[in-house]
Amino acid sequence: MNFCSHCGSPLEFRIPEGDSLPRHVCPACGTIHYQNPKMVVGCIPEWEDKVLLCKRAIEPKYGLWTLPAGFMENGETTAEGALRETWEEAGARVELGPLYTLFNLPHIDQVYFMFRARLLDLDYQPGIESLEVRLFAEHEIPWDQIAFRTVKASLELYFRDRANGGFGFHIGDIRAPSGVLQPGLVVPIATAAAVKE
Amino acid sequence: MNFCSHCGSPLEFRIPEGDSLPRHVCPACGTIHYQNPKMVVGCIPEWEDKVLLCKRAIEPKYGLWTLPAGFMENGETTAEGALRETWEEAGARVELGPLYTLFNLPHIDQVYFMFRARLLDLDYQPGIESLEVRLFAEHEIPWDQIAFRTVKASLELYFRDRANGGFGFHIGDIRAPSGVLQPGLVVPIATAAAVKE
Repeated sequence: MNFCSHCGSPLEFRIPEGDSLPRHVCPACGTIHYQNPKMVVGCIPEWEDKVLLCKRAIEPKYGLWTLPAGFMENGETTAEGALRETWEEAGARVELGPLYTLFNLPHIDQVYFMFRARLLDLDYQPGIESLEVRLFAEHEIPWDQIAFRTVKASLELYFRDRANGGFGFHIGDIRAPSGVLQPGLVVPIATAAAVKE
Repeated sequence: MNFCSHCGSPLEFRIPEGDSLPRHVCPACGTIHYQNPKMVVGCIPEWEDKVLLCKRAIEPKYGLWTLPAGFMENGETTAEGALRETWEEAGARVELGPLYTLFNLPHIDQVYFMFRARLLDLDYQPGIESLEVRLFAEHEIPWDQIAFRTVKASLELYFRDRANGGFGFHIGDIRAPSGVLQPGLVVPIATAAAVKE
C-alpha cells in the first residue's frame, strides 16, 4: 500500500494518535487505511456416504482437490457466501446445515468457515475455477492431493465425527510454518455424545 | 475508493474478466482492489451472576453501553482479538470460553463474533474508548441504552440460555432497515438440553 485510495497522495506508515499499531495514514487528507483479516466461506456437500470435491483450475494449488469455498463478499452473509461459492465452483445446489469448522490462519490474515451441507441433486458441474467436480467416498479421498490444510482438517474432522456417530462444531488455529493444527478453543459442546444424530 | 493504492493512478469500477461483480480496477498496473466484510470480535465477561459492560467514550453511540468488542486485526486469531479488545476497552483480564454468537450484518459488511468469558479479577478499568466499565446483574442491564443490536441480541440470548440452564452457539442475521433479528441458521447443537452445564 503506497498511495491513498481516497486522494492519491503518498502514504505514511505510522501509529495514529490514540492507536497502538502502525497503519497506512494519508498526510494530505487524514484517511487511515486499516487492513483486516478476510473470511473464506464454504461447505462440505454430502450425498449419501460421499462428499463433493473440486479439482482446482487456478493457482494457487492448481490441479489439487478442495471443498467449494472462497472469499466472502460485501453485502452477503456467511451462509449466502458459502452457497454462492458452492454454485460458482461446483455448479452444485445444496441445503446448508450447521456451521462445522472455523479455522484461524493468522499468518495469512484469513479465517475459514465451513458449513455442513446436503447436495440437492447430482446436476453439479465444474465452474470456471474448477477442472473437475466429483463425489468421493471416505476411502477414495485423495489425501495427498488436498489443496489446503483447512480443507484437509475439515475433512478429517468430518469423517472422524461421522464414525463416532455425531457432528460438533470445531474451532482451531492453523499457524505457519509448522502447519500443525492447534485445537485452540475447541468448543466443548462439540462432543459426539451431545450431538448424536 | 478513487485511486490505486499500489501505483496511485485513477481507478475504474468494472467487472474484471472472469469475475461476476464490479471491482475497483487499476487500468495502469492491473491491480484489482477487492473489498470484503470485516470481523468484529468480543466477549461477554462473566463474574458470578453479573456481566461486564463498557460505556462508550467514542462515536458512534457515545455514552451508550456495549460489550468489549472491536475489529479483528491482521495477524491474530478470533480469540486473540477478543482478548485484546477486552483488555483495551475494559482493562479486563478474562479466560475465554466457547464462541457464543455469530451475527451477520450484510448491510454494513460486518460479522460479529462474541465469546463467553470468565472475568479473572475485579481490577478492570475503562480504556481510552470507554467512559466507564461496570458489572451488571440481569435486572440492572440498561436495555434502552445498549449501543448495538448485536450486543443486545447477544445479551438477550445469554440471559435466556442461562435461565434455561445451558448455553448453545447461536448464528443469526441482523438486517437493515427493520432491525429484526432473523434466526437464520440456528445451529441445532445449540439446544439447552445438549449443553446443560
